[in-house]
Amino acid sequence: MSARRWDLLLTRATLASFAGDAPSGLIGDGALACVDGRIAWIGSMRDLPADALATHVEDLGGALLTPGLVDCHTHLVFGGNRANEFDMRLNGASYETIASAGGGIVSSVRATRATSEDELFAQSLPRARALLADGVTTLEIKSGYGLDLEAERRMLRVARRIGESLGISVRTGFLGLHALPPEYRERRDDYVALVCDTMLPALADEGLVDAVDAFCERIAFTPAETRRLFERATQLGLPVKLHAEQLSDQGGAALVAGFDGLSADHLEHLGEAGIAAMAQAGTVAVLLPGAFYALRETQLPPVAALRAHGVPIAIATDCNPGTSPLLSLRLAANLACTLFRLTPEEALRGVTVNAARALGLADRGTLAVGQRADLVAWHAKQPAELCYWIGGSLVRQIWLDGRPL
Amino acid sequence: MSARRWDLLLTRATLASFAGDAPSGLIGDGALACVDGRIAWIGSMRDLPADALATHVEDLGGALLTPGLVDCHTHLVFGGNRANEFDMRLNGASYETIASAGGGIVSSVRATRATSEDELFAQSLPRARALLADGVTTLEIKSGYGLDLEAERRMLRVARRIGESLGISVRTGFLGLHALPPEYRERRDDYVALVCDTMLPALADEGLVDAVDAFCERIAFTPAETRRLFERATQLGLPVKLHAEQLSDQGGAALVAGFDGLSADHLEHLGEAGIAAMAQAGTVAVLLPGAFYALRETQLPPVAALRAHGVPIAIATDCNPGTSPLLSLRLAANLACTLFRLTPEEALRGVTVNAARALGLADRGTLAVGQRADLVAWHAKQPAELCYWIGGSLVRQIWLDGRPL
Ligand SMILES: [Zn+2]
Ligand SMILES: [Zn+2]
Repeated sequence: MSARRWDLLLTRATLASFAGDAPSGLIGDGALACVDGRIAWIGSMRDLPADALATHVEDLGGALLTPGLVDCHTHLVFGGNRANEFDMRLNGASYETIASAGGGIVSSVRATRATSEDELFAQSLPRARALLADGVTTLEIKSGYGLDLEAERRMLRVARRIGESLGISVRTGFLGLHALPPEYRERRDDYVALVCDTMLPALADEGLVDAVDAFCERIAFTPAETRRLFERATQLGLPVKLHAEQLSDQGGAALVAGFDGLSADHLEHLGEAGIAAMAQAGTVAVLLPGAFYALRETQLPPVAALRAHGVPIAIATDCNPGTSPLLSLRLAANLACTLFRLTPEEALRGVTVNAARALGLADRGTLAVGQRADLVAWHAKQPAELCYWIGGSLVRQIWLDGRPL
Repeated sequence: MSARRWDLLLTRATLASFAGDAPSGLIGDGALACVDGRIAWIGSMRDLPADALATHVEDLGGALLTPGLVDCHTHLVFGGNRANEFDMRLNGASYETIASAGGGIVSSVRATRATSEDELFAQSLPRARALLADGVTTLEIKSGYGLDLEAERRMLRVARRIGESLGISVRTGFLGLHALPPEYRERRDDYVALVCDTMLPALADEGLVDAVDAFCERIAFTPAETRRLFERATQLGLPVKLHAEQLSDQGGAALVAGFDGLSADHLEHLGEAGIAAMAQAGTVAVLLPGAFYALRETQLPPVAALRAHGVPIAIATDCNPGTSPLLSLRLAANLACTLFRLTPEEALRGVTVNAARALGLADRGTLAVGQRADLVAWHAKQPAELCYWIGGSLVRQIWLDGRPL
């Protein structure tokens, strides 16, 4: 069985594989071996072949081992930050006052446009590093603060550079339909046309677009505008996903499900029709408790109905400067448990196997033979601890592609 | 002015001194010098003496420098954890079910009693390290999971060892009146007598008690029992503080203020009489948003009335295994802003100058000549950022007593 010598063998681990339906896919006293950046063997210590050979062997002494976490929804590339606005709001300024002082998403667009690629990289890298430090090895990063071809390209190039620089997997999302840029205020059709007919094809051609996203909401883009974008994405062979039903039910979840979308994200105002459509299409429900918390929302996403329909649930940080300056996916899982009453099991599947599915990636998010050897050993003995502790860092060791970080 | 050579000179810092009444006591382009572990000079770069001499000079390039943070209320020494209970609750178990399965505070008492001093130290140290990693250089640690002389002593000895081991300041709180231990269920007077007449004097005599605390609540100890403890503490010359008005208004805040108490902590159900008494005595209001968050409380502490009466407000983690497994004081500050609507300025004074006052320590919590040189340089340019980012680590460099960590 082990005629081949393994590169790495981890012994005496509590394996939370998230493979299969058993709770956490738990293997109590387990071992895991890797070859060429892939998992080559996983099982109980007692089943480990007696003639097992490995170049590196590490005894984890019972520590929990999970797949590297997957953050499937972030906007972590942006210029500046909005701490000032946070401060103004807590000092009693209204949204109108803040907007008239140049605040809101427009301020991030202005700052991002004014920031060079190197500087944008320098400002954004520590945020990706913070997520990695807490166990994230695959990360989605969206554009959407550039809102012109040149600045959107810069954001996506920075996203790719972050992945290369940290050795983690970065999946890009093109979010040209994030907000209407100020210079198009009186010409919204022209902007939608620019995004669909110029920006998307150009950026896709440059290999910068892994998926296509939009913000479908009364304050952003209509279902008809979103559909136009999705049709173009489909022509280009790109998968779609959507910021849907965050503030109102626009039918966005059903719309993205109709395009076999990867995910519908936010979903506080999601209704039965949207849930049924998502269940049918296998579209993942990505819940973003950081934004719910920071905005002090009260409308909860329909967790019970999602469960009842068997819609897979993922959890992400939504890391962004305005509504979720959240730098830990484990903390997002805690927020999902505390605020949305997800079980730790649901929250942890939400940052592993279901988050990978929300990115269309079948080769990670579980511990199983053939999967990428992106692994995290934790200062913890049982999976629920990862959701229970609030803040701090529990990471003991990370392996990317089978190599220790 | 600088005839004496400084040990350390930090230049080009954004100094948030929290001295005086100006916002954050901010000095935009500042410098700070230390001698013998104390701050020897602080001011604007332009006022730095031309003949300034220092053994080590560090250019902070505009980074924010604050006093080391002070976490004035924690229970971070305990055996085991209660992730299991967290999991059960989210899977629908009632508090009764959990209690009958041996859960609740009793389970932490059982685990703590069964844990040796070395093991208790090994389990608790990483929690103190997590707080330090996020900028905490002075830490309060309470007993209260031992509930017998030997186990309470063990907890307090571990608290002292943590301080020595990390080189940070640990202040101990004796919390024998935390819960009635199971073996005294039918003899509560005997337990109160044991705490007041045996445990407290013995532990004080061993130098293990910096302050005396109790949990005054319907489910814990009465105001009369608390008073008996406080009278004994006063005889012994020890300052008092109190877990007060967390679940109901017991008059605990007025009681502790009547003993010139350092602080009254929690306070969600605090009324006008208690606030007036605290204002008069100068007792600090310690708010604990981690417990409010984890317990999903809805009754907010009376922040507006505390402001109106000029009661100093501090913020702490309440780090404990049951109701606040919170490992970051900066996250507690974010929770206080988001949930209690404190301004960043209030939250930051709450984890610096007012938290030091809640521990009776006048030599820290501000940047001023003569203060301890416990300093934190941050990956941030303005104070509000420390409250704005949720999770992650923003610490760039820590100095304890003028020495880099
Ligand atoms: Zn988003
Ligand atoms: Zn407490």
